[in-house]
Amino acid sequence: MSGEGLVRVAGANSALAGVLAEQAGFNAVWASSLEISAMRCLPDASILGMSEYLRAAADMQKALRVPVVADCDTGFGNNLNVAHMIMEYEDAGITAVCVEDKTYPKMNSFAGTDHSLLSTREFAGKIAVAKSQQRSDMFLIARTEALIAGGTVDEALRRCRAYADAGADAVLVHSKKPTNDQIVEFLGRWDVDLPVVIVPTTYHAWDAEDAYKLGASVIIYANHGLRTMISSLRATYAEILAAGQTTGLEDRIASVSEIFALQRLDEWQRLQP
Amino acid sequence: MSGEGLVRVAGANSALAGVLAEQAGFNAVWASSLEISAMRCLPDASILGMSEYLRAAADMQKALRVPVVADCDTGFGNNLNVAHMIMEYEDAGITAVCVEDKTYPKMNSFAGTDHSLLSTREFAGKIAVAKSQQRSDMFLIARTEALIAGGTVDEALRRCRAYADAGADAVLVHSKKPTNDQIVEFLGRWDVDLPVVIVPTTYHAWDAEDAYKLGASVIIYANHGLRTMISSLRATYAEILAAGQTTGLEDRIASVSEIFALQRLDEWQRLQP
Amino acid sequence: MSGEGLVRVAGANSALAGVLAEQAGFNAVWASSLEISAMRCLPDASILGMSEYLRAAADMQKALRVPVVADCDTGFGNNLNVAHMIMEYEDAGITAVCVEDKTYPKMNSFAGTDHSLLSTREFAGKIAVAKSQQRSDMFLIARTEALIAGGTVDEALRRCRAYADAGADAVLVHSKKPTNDQIVEFLGRWDVDLPVVIVPTTYHAWDAEDAYKLGASVIIYANHGLRTMISSLRATYAEILAAGQTTGLEDRIASVSEIFALQRLDEWQRLQP
Amino acid sequence: MSGEGLVRVAGANSALAGVLAEQAGFNAVWASSLEISAMRCLPDASILGMSEYLRAAADMQKALRVPVVADCDTGFGNNLNVAHMIMEYEDAGITAVCVEDKTYPKMNSFAGTDHSLLSTREFAGKIAVAKSQQRSDMFLIARTEALIAGGTVDEALRRCRAYADAGADAVLVHSKKPTNDQIVEFLGRWDVDLPVVIVPTTYHAWDAEDAYKLGASVIIYANHGLRTMISSLRATYAEILAAGQTTGLEDRIASVSEIFALQRLDEWQRLQP
Repeated sequence: MSGEGLVRVAGANSALAGVLAEQAGFNAVWASSLEISAMRCLPDASILGMSEYLRAAADMQKALRVPVVADCDTGFGNNLNVAHMIMEYEDAGITAVCVEDKTYPKMNSFAGTDHSLLSTREFAGKIAVAKSQQRSDMFLIARTEALIAGGTVDEALRRCRAYADAGADAVLVHSKKPTNDQIVEFLGRWDVDLPVVIVPTTYHAWDAEDAYKLGASVIIYANHGLRTMISSLRATYAEILAAGQTTGLEDRIASVSEIFALQRLDEWQRLQP
Repeated sequence: MSGEGLVRVAGANSALAGVLAEQAGFNAVWASSLEISAMRCLPDASILGMSEYLRAAADMQKALRVPVVADCDTGFGNNLNVAHMIMEYEDAGITAVCVEDKTYPKMNSFAGTDHSLLSTREFAGKIAVAKSQQRSDMFLIARTEALIAGGTVDEALRRCRAYADAGADAVLVHSKKPTNDQIVEFLGRWDVDLPVVIVPTTYHAWDAEDAYKLGASVIIYANHGLRTMISSLRATYAEILAAGQTTGLEDRIASVSEIFALQRLDEWQRLQP
Repeated sequence: MSGEGLVRVAGANSALAGVLAEQAGFNAVWASSLEISAMRCLPDASILGMSEYLRAAADMQKALRVPVVADCDTGFGNNLNVAHMIMEYEDAGITAVCVEDKTYPKMNSFAGTDHSLLSTREFAGKIAVAKSQQRSDMFLIARTEALIAGGTVDEALRRCRAYADAGADAVLVHSKKPTNDQIVEFLGRWDVDLPVVIVPTTYHAWDAEDAYKLGASVIIYANHGLRTMISSLRATYAEILAAGQTTGLEDRIASVSEIFALQRLDEWQRLQP
Repeated sequence: MSGEGLVRVAGANSALAGVLAEQAGFNAVWASSLEISAMRCLPDASILGMSEYLRAAADMQKALRVPVVADCDTGFGNNLNVAHMIMEYEDAGITAVCVEDKTYPKMNSFAGTDHSLLSTREFAGKIAVAKSQQRSDMFLIARTEALIAGGTVDEALRRCRAYADAGADAVLVHSKKPTNDQIVEFLGRWDVDLPVVIVPTTYHAWDAEDAYKLGASVIIYANHGLRTMISSLRATYAEILAAGQTTGLEDRIASVSEIFALQRLDEWQRLQP
């Protein structure tokens, strides 16, 4: 993630989705806690634990050449949990993780509820512990939920500077306003030499290149794959029942051969002549 | 699965897909080994083990009111593996399983390779062991791959009769011919009072009601959800990169609120006032 | 656990240890978070998550006829985590669970550190949520750590009465004093018609029948199996290296046949004639 | 395992047992399929799958500085399964694995039953596939069960030479005779420059140094830890019930502080001041 230009990252719900994102040209894959929990029909509210998120992320990384960026929520508890998390993700070959400054258990940022934050000092402590535990070149993104919790851009900047001082390799600033004003202001005032990650879910009309020119280094399209899967499966399942057969679908859906290609079946079959 | 009319079953790759199938009106969900392995970008070739297939099926069942029908491949080995499988699936709340008469490790039926079968006696033995181990009202489908392996309808019938004698609760006869001739012949000659399950992947123009009139009791649309996911994710990921923003997608993909509804987020939130 | 007399419960680190406890005559098995985390050489500090503790408990229950009492720490977070926990443990066939009133993440009660408690109201809320979520006859033990956190017997009683009002099926009062004074006082003043569970780790000279006469209904020997395993493995491993062969051990350790008996190997082998 | 002198390896049932073996001075830890399956009270008969054995081995390796040697049974199927296994074990940081030439599903070597072998050609093919898939310096032990299956030392030698030719890094020759005659003969006639691994379970009087002088490079004490755990837990559980308290045990079993030391609790606690 240290190369030239904007780094584009796609959310994925599975290794398969990750491979499709990689094939489309994304530079990395976001192992989204929203997508992963939604695949289980469970809320994105620290209901699944670290081992489940790790397994999902590790399954993705095994299938990918581009890096997985693992959404690690709050780090799953206190400093001890963060330390354990770093060791486990490293052991699983994950080289980029993101932790956020909400309290455990967290609730998804888009849910209508109060979101409470750790103190800046406590979360900076988590960042410092995470960096002290890593044994490789783990890339750690510190995410502030200051704006999600109703705070100001000032607070978001103050927090992110503290997280940078504590050793973060990048910061992520999240907003759920319908416009990008808060993020544009943040980028304009960001004066630390660390990449900024953005997640334009609600301010979706913002052109990626424009965001890059304003200072964003990484852009995450966090949940569009999941949302596509929901709408397309709804349509397909309904059509099967309505039509009573599937000939009408054949031209619009991937073939079984295409599944085999994604499984690299021919490579596997060569092993057993 | 003992009610009136044709039982319609949709393949699913996850609990989320299963819920979408249930909401569409399917009577049951097929925890397909092809879909589950493809989600990991691994071949459908006994690479994943029972515990992984079980976890996927159990995660589906937890989210569903309709039953999961678990695709259990060959039973994962010999009689001991089948006995263990039955106990584990029962413990996980899965009440319908399907085992097939290929040898372990199996290869996906649509893959171009030789498919070898267990002897009828050996596979009937597996069925008998499975039924002897169950402690509840497990519904066991015996699937013959006789036609997949190049055998005749005669052989498929002979095998299915033996499996019925051994205690199977239903039989599944699979073919990968482009037309439904083999299956129609099988149904016409099937003279045992047990339901027949069909999987019209290649003979997709066959109307479900016509199949029902010819004697099919259960129809599985085994992989259309997965194939839909692949084609729609490809399109969405490509469009995001091409457009540089996602406004164009917003009307065609599910909203974040729709995700929350599938997660039953409001029910969960009421627990923590 | 509703029968006559004192219920004796042994801590276990595995299904195997649980079966040995059952064979010895214990009435139930304690799936101890200390034992389970120690088997991984990880601290008993909410480092392992619900899914790992659940798997360990479920593996035990599969092998046992007597019930597993699952040590569920703090319930792994807030009310949502508790609700999820109850559903998952029920799905896994676990019918008795214990949650404690420390804050998440907890630290083992015997560790030298401050232990902070949830407010009585918040923990009673967890108990109420847990009971409202159960779909079967789950037995819920509410454990107070009031004495561990330096509180008085008064506080322990006040808390346990509130937990009883909230729906707990039993209370557990824990102390790490070298004598049983606090627990004896608690039992003498306990005036609610609910069983009291005790864990005499530090006040080990207390005779079980005496505790029963004073009002204890359930006694948990929480960690003696683990401690035995450590001391005996240390001795065996050292002796192997010192002796250079194992003949001297043969009479003191179980035979391979004894392992087979615990695996019920002959029953399994009869399945594959 | 390329250093000077005999390499001594202890079987372990858990990370904790592995650490105790390491502390005692063993050079490596054997993640034994017998021990791991026995901990679940399941037979050592390919009932547990690769993912369960891998998880147990990986949990050990995380806690250890010495290498884990993972008992990988038959490789869990055919060449595809072996290839998948190698990739998964490498991903988990396991650098030494052992596969054996029995057919899948295998039965424990000491069980009274027929043991059938793959053809030499087929198993050599598995070895070649395994070596071709590795991306690191995986150490692969090829284990012959020729003697277990009733074959001659000639056959064992013939097989092991073929496995060496196919790329194995060491060979393991197993016998369940009450004396070491077969193994001594094998060592005397072994003329390939590859280490030989022995497992003196039944010929337990054989001194390790004597075996080393005769040509053994690695000695595995495969199940003594498990057998110790069984006998000592039986005694402890019985004594608790008989005595009605545990004071008599206190001097003979490890203290809670000793558990904390094995968990490295003080190191963890320093992370959260």
